[in-house]
Amino acid sequence: MADPLFRRVAIIGIGLIGSSIARKVMKEGLAEEIAICDRGAAALAEARELGLGHVYEENPGDAVKGAGLVVSCVPVGAAGDVAVSIAPWLEPDALVTDTGSVKASVVRQMLPHLPDASRFVPAHPVAGTENSGPSAGFADLFENRWCILTPTRETDLRALDRVSEFWRRLGADVETMTPEHHDLVLAITSHLPHLIAYNIVGTADDLEEVTQSEVIKFSAGGFRDFTRLAASDPTMWRDVFLHNREAVLEALGRFSEDLAALQRAIRWSDGTTLFDTFTRTRAIRRGIIDAGQEIAEPDFGRRAA
Amino acid sequence: MADPLFRRVAIIGIGLIGSSIARKVMKEGLAEEIAICDRGAAALAEARELGLGHVYEENPGDAVKGAGLVVSCVPVGAAGDVAVSIAPWLEPDALVTDTGSVKASVVRQMLPHLPDASRFVPAHPVAGTENSGPSAGFADLFENRWCILTPTRETDLRALDRVSEFWRRLGADVETMTPEHHDLVLAITSHLPHLIAYNIVGTADDLEEVTQSEVIKFSAGGFRDFTRLAASDPTMWRDVFLHNREAVLEALGRFSEDLAALQRAIRWSDGTTLFDTFTRTRAIRRGIIDAGQEIAEPDFGRRAA
Ligand SMILES: NC(=O)c1ccc[n+]([C@@H]2O[C@H](COP(=O)([O-])OP(=O)(O)OC[C@H]3O[C@@H](n4cnc5c(N)ncnc54)[C@H](OP(=O)(O)O)[C@@H]3O)[C@@H](O)[C@H]2O)c1
Ligand SMILES: NC(=O)c1ccc[n+]([C@@H]2O[C@H](COP(=O)([O-])OP(=O)(O)OC[C@H]3O[C@@H](n4cnc5c(N)ncnc54)[C@H](OP(=O)(O)O)[C@@H]3O)[C@@H](O)[C@H]2O)c1
Repeated sequence: MADPLFRRVAIIGIGLIGSSIARKVMKEGLAEEIAICDRGAAALAEARELGLGHVYEENPGDAVKGAGLVVSCVPVGAAGDVAVSIAPWLEPDALVTDTGSVKASVVRQMLPHLPDASRFVPAHPVAGTENSGPSAGFADLFENRWCILTPTRETDLRALDRVSEFWRRLGADVETMTPEHHDLVLAITSHLPHLIAYNIVGTADDLEEVTQSEVIKFSAGGFRDFTRLAASDPTMWRDVFLHNREAVLEALGRFSEDLAALQRAIRWSDGTTLFDTFTRTRAIRRGIIDAGQEIAEPDFGRRAA
Repeated sequence: MADPLFRRVAIIGIGLIGSSIARKVMKEGLAEEIAICDRGAAALAEARELGLGHVYEENPGDAVKGAGLVVSCVPVGAAGDVAVSIAPWLEPDALVTDTGSVKASVVRQMLPHLPDASRFVPAHPVAGTENSGPSAGFADLFENRWCILTPTRETDLRALDRVSEFWRRLGADVETMTPEHHDLVLAITSHLPHLIAYNIVGTADDLEEVTQSEVIKFSAGGFRDFTRLAASDPTMWRDVFLHNREAVLEALGRFSEDLAALQRAIRWSDGTTLFDTFTRTRAIRRGIIDAGQEIAEPDFGRRAA
């Protein structure tokens, strides 16, 4: 256990991400005190039962009092509300960060309300599972994963350094880019994949010629992989698409163009185009495995099921 | 070890599927002799080195001599060639089955050449991984998975029973349907998912604003899941799309319509439509887990990477 980085850390929103942060802060002793806040009484009670923190507050203002670091872990549509509710109660030297999957919108929502823009360091840990809520979290979630920091033009360098250090101590590798570039990158590496997954699962559910029981039985042919992403939290994902509209529509436009080309190749029995497309996509998986972002075992190592 | 079902089983094509069958037949003693045939000298040498069978033949005619069961495990585009090359050498009582991912086309390709249509029982084990070749197989591949038999109008009931028994002894649950219905079901549970996965990985590879290294680094946001299916064998998948064209185009048409509706919902900030779509897709994953076709652990149990 190392020196604590902060006396009090306040976590607003104790779902999958907030509770994973709480667990790791506790495990590593990164703060003397963890204050947990959630607007849901059930989530708060669950967090208390799980012993995720030291104090539990329904009121964000009470949670951030005395906190050197405030981490907002709510769906991106609630970022503005959180900023408004914490602003009057922030300590003068408090750092504010978040974990939202979209960054430009979060900056637009939060920045105008915060008393000291230089101490706001937006962040997005690229780590998660399909589950949500306080019990879904675990201390190792950020291990071996990237956390993207998206400082604004007003972010102070020392604030950036301290929040970097915090994420590294949570187990993450840290990368820095603009909020706008973040939103382009994540549109393709996360938002579009979720949209496609939700969509294909919906399509399968609507077919008349194929029953739902057949879809379930024969899902090991590939379909089941998509159902994992499509089991993710609806509120979180609704907010992501509402708040990263331009970048998602742009990525989706590219995807649909490419899909039309494959459709044409199938219609005209153009085996060469199909073969070439299916060949060049292999290299990317190799790269992901080599970069330590995926396990090498076949079928995600899923032999049991 | 139970009684052998056949004196000799001949396996034509010793890739992922053929070699998994060979391993399980050997392990369970389902045949006294396994004859392995592949047109690739390298695959045949590898099979010999791995000790997958008893005799190794480049010539399909030599492999099927004396065989009570012949299992064709080649890409679906090669089904006709296999039928032509084995037909003159089949024993009068030999059963013929296959493992192709498309069924109506395989029937059209093979049936006219076989000396006894009543002894032809087309099959498709809905099990696999993204790897191919003789070393990719394993004896437990079919455990807890479905194998779909698609008898033709000419298939004899006793032949169907014996091939069912064979697949059950390989570890699979057996289901029966027409080749045409099989192709509709698999278009949505397997073929379309692969097409979509290949497509999104291709789209990501082509973007100008986002580098390939960024796609790789931040792939844990969801994208990496798709790269697994998109790392599958290009020959096998080219053949699937060329041979199940109508059903795939129909499923793709539905998918694209549904995607256009989601696109519109994003463009017009229609959060209700997004939320409702993202909510109803959860039930299917629950069903797949309950049916034992998926593991319940979050993130496919992939904590290590
Ligand atoms: N899940 C992932 O894979 C992942 C990965 C990286 C980043 N993120 C981002 O991290 C954030 C949290 O995601 P999560 O998966 O942890 O979500 P989650 O499990 O659904 O938890 C969010 C929690 O925040 C609470 N909340 C909502 N509005 C609030 C408000 N105004 N004040 C206080 N609490 C509020 C929610 O309560 P109610 O239930 O009452 O609404 C819920 O308990 C999101 O911005 C998401 O985009 C998620
Ligand atoms: N992979 C899966 O997940 C999966 C699942 C269920 C069913 N299937 C089906 O099972 C079949 C085999 O798939 P697989 O994954 O095992 O493929 P694979 O690993 O690529 O192996 C196929 C083998 O067949 C050989 N071959 C091709 N044409 C031949 C011919 N005319 N005569 C003899 N051998 C020939 C290939 O040799 P060359 O390398 O020289 O071409 C190769 O060694 C396909 O029809 C596929 O649709 C696959």
